[in-house]
Amino acid sequence: MLSLDKVFNAQTVLKNIIRETNVVRSYGIAQNCELFLKPENLQITGSFKVRGSAYKIAMLSEEEKQRGVIACSAGNHAQGVALAATKNGIRSLICLPDSAPISKVEATKGFGAQVCLVEGCYDDAYQKALELKESEGYTFVHPFDDENVIAGQGTIALEILNDLDNIDAIVVPIGGGGLISGIAYTVKQIRPSVKVYGVQATGAPSMYNSIHNGKIDSLESVSTIADGIAVKKPGENTYNLVKEYVDDIAVVSDDEVASAILALIEKQKMIAEGAGAAAVAAVMFNKFDLEGKRVVAVVSGGNIDVTSLSRVIDRGLLKSGRSSSLLIELIDKPGQLKHISRIIADCGGNVTGVHYEKGNTESVNGCYLRIEMETRDFEHVNLITQSLRNEGFKIV
Amino acid sequence: MLSLDKVFNAQTVLKNIIRETNVVRSYGIAQNCELFLKPENLQITGSFKVRGSAYKIAMLSEEEKQRGVIACSAGNHAQGVALAATKNGIRSLICLPDSAPISKVEATKGFGAQVCLVEGCYDDAYQKALELKESEGYTFVHPFDDENVIAGQGTIALEILNDLDNIDAIVVPIGGGGLISGIAYTVKQIRPSVKVYGVQATGAPSMYNSIHNGKIDSLESVSTIADGIAVKKPGENTYNLVKEYVDDIAVVSDDEVASAILALIEKQKMIAEGAGAAAVAAVMFNKFDLEGKRVVAVVSGGNIDVTSLSRVIDRGLLKSGRSSSLLIELIDKPGQLKHISRIIADCGGNVTGVHYEKGNTESVNGCYLRIEMETRDFEHVNLITQSLRNEGFKIV
Repeated sequence: MLSLDKVFNAQTVLKNIIRETNVVRSYGIAQNCELFLKPENLQITGSFKVRGSAYKIAMLSEEEKQRGVIACSAGNHAQGVALAATKNGIRSLICLPDSAPISKVEATKGFGAQVCLVEGCYDDAYQKALELKESEGYTFVHPFDDENVIAGQGTIALEILNDLDNIDAIVVPIGGGGLISGIAYTVKQIRPSVKVYGVQATGAPSMYNSIHNGKIDSLESVSTIADGIAVKKPGENTYNLVKEYVDDIAVVSDDEVASAILALIEKQKMIAEGAGAAAVAAVMFNKFDLEGKRVVAVVSGGNIDVTSLSRVIDRGLLKSGRSSSLLIELIDKPGQLKHISRIIADCGGNVTGVHYEKGNTESVNGCYLRIEMETRDFEHVNLITQSLRNEGFKIV
Repeated sequence: MLSLDKVFNAQTVLKNIIRETNVVRSYGIAQNCELFLKPENLQITGSFKVRGSAYKIAMLSEEEKQRGVIACSAGNHAQGVALAATKNGIRSLICLPDSAPISKVEATKGFGAQVCLVEGCYDDAYQKALELKESEGYTFVHPFDDENVIAGQGTIALEILNDLDNIDAIVVPIGGGGLISGIAYTVKQIRPSVKVYGVQATGAPSMYNSIHNGKIDSLESVSTIADGIAVKKPGENTYNLVKEYVDDIAVVSDDEVASAILALIEKQKMIAEGAGAAAVAAVMFNKFDLEGKRVVAVVSGGNIDVTSLSRVIDRGLLKSGRSSSLLIELIDKPGQLKHISRIIADCGGNVTGVHYEKGNTESVNGCYLRIEMETRDFEHVNLITQSLRNEGFKIV
């Protein structure tokens, strides 16, 4: 049974394994509440996951430790288990789908685990892990549906309550539900007046649906940039804990998550992965009634690969008018590019790309010119568009 | 005169204005030393600058405070002075060149300053600030060449020595020299065995040159992505302090700085601006003899605009083989793109852009195909290139 004693015990056990991440006040992200961040992206391994797996592993019997542990994960859980096992001096084997990014495979090895690459997707890797558990006698470390794992994640709540005397709400991302179960359970035992809100991705609303339907629901497929919370089915323990202790759950879109990632970069100088930014997105886009409240958003992790990060930033720039792309239909004659370049330069736009494209233009001599620019904001984009139109250019 | 008392006094005065940023252990960035980071990018205003200006302003006489303060800056100093003045309940006017990014102008206003946009470059804004100082009676807050400003920056050294008992060296970026002067002076008074190393950009080596030539040198022009340390001429106070207390100075290239920014993102989940990453770059690229040492790199700030960040990331991906661009010369006939796509897909490359280009090919029917791809590393790029060559394609 989960108990507050277990959470306090986890805090003691974890002392020399994890970082105590200090809550920071965030300025300029939330419009109408006082926002604090619990930066678990700055945790060792780049995510909170190490707390749960390290406590789980520390609590194993000597005989179980002897046999080593096995886990299946394409991401943060893998690194958490690997580090926790190494710190406890035991063997770990992590099954990963062979499609996992090489950076995550390397990181997992770097923390001392053996890695078993399994052909196929996550489910295939999971099956392989179960097989190896049976045949080789490893102890399986579940990513969320386990009381000791949940107790480990609960230590985050202890740290938050210790850092801040007076808060109204904690907002937490939900994948399988281990993180929010630990936090909600702990908070409601110690300071029940504090609200605990959960956030899922619109493309992976398994806990959201389950709670609304009153029974555990399983999704056929999931799709979100917040891959850390793309879980098809909540756990039984976590479902029951969320049902009992969580005040409300909302969903956020991929574009909202991308905006939150960008806001954390600009205002907080922090990298969050999609799942890590989900709670911040919920606060930014007013998914809960938090006006005037003191709110902690848990930034659960920062393990986003740089290619994805680059895409998120590019999309964020586009969505906020700081980059833009115009398609101009024109008659293909000398001097056109010069004319257009002059107009854009006069308006203060910075051209970063030019492409001529043939196509189904009105005139036989027509062509399309795609101009990519750095701009200040949408007003600036409009100014440039209008100036081009004023000089007779047709923006498609 | 600068004194240790002043630095300790600054620490007391700054207590309720700034954040004490905790030193963090950094894994995976430095290859041959034990690296710690002093994350002043997480400081209020996103840079250490607020320390110096806040102490300077707090030490003004009542009469000087009455008259308000003026400063000139295109970046971090502006925000530092603005916040420090507001916290002290006094007026501030910041002169900025009208070319300053809108985000910095908005941030400066957000911290409560009046902003005066001056047509031209930094030097024009500086002249305007001096004029307004004379005509309106403002007190001028220099960005670095001022003892109280230097004492304020020295508080960083107190925090580092308090966080870590046993260190061998501190590596610090140098622009005008205020930051390193404060740190070096303080460290050498308290724990003289600790080495203090300075880092400048190859495109703005004003202090580096001055120290090597034995007199203050002024650069005609500066050019670096580390705009926060692009200073043409060191201060007199700072030159003398650096000469006396700094053990060595090195320079880092823009590509080295970009690699350090990327490493901080990936390994530390932190955003640093160019200047902020300079010290880390010096450690990564072995500019000093730090083998086996315990080293603190000061990450001085995180105010990089997202457009630059996006460029740095894209360049970093290219430089590490995680994105690549191939130019293939081929005969323009049906099925070529299909053939090439199949080869790339079989090798596990992810195509992100395709452009046909006409050009001066060998054959009349020839054309160029530019393929942009996400790849794992250079080995992966080579594998794809080789596979294309094996099937008869000509990579230009």
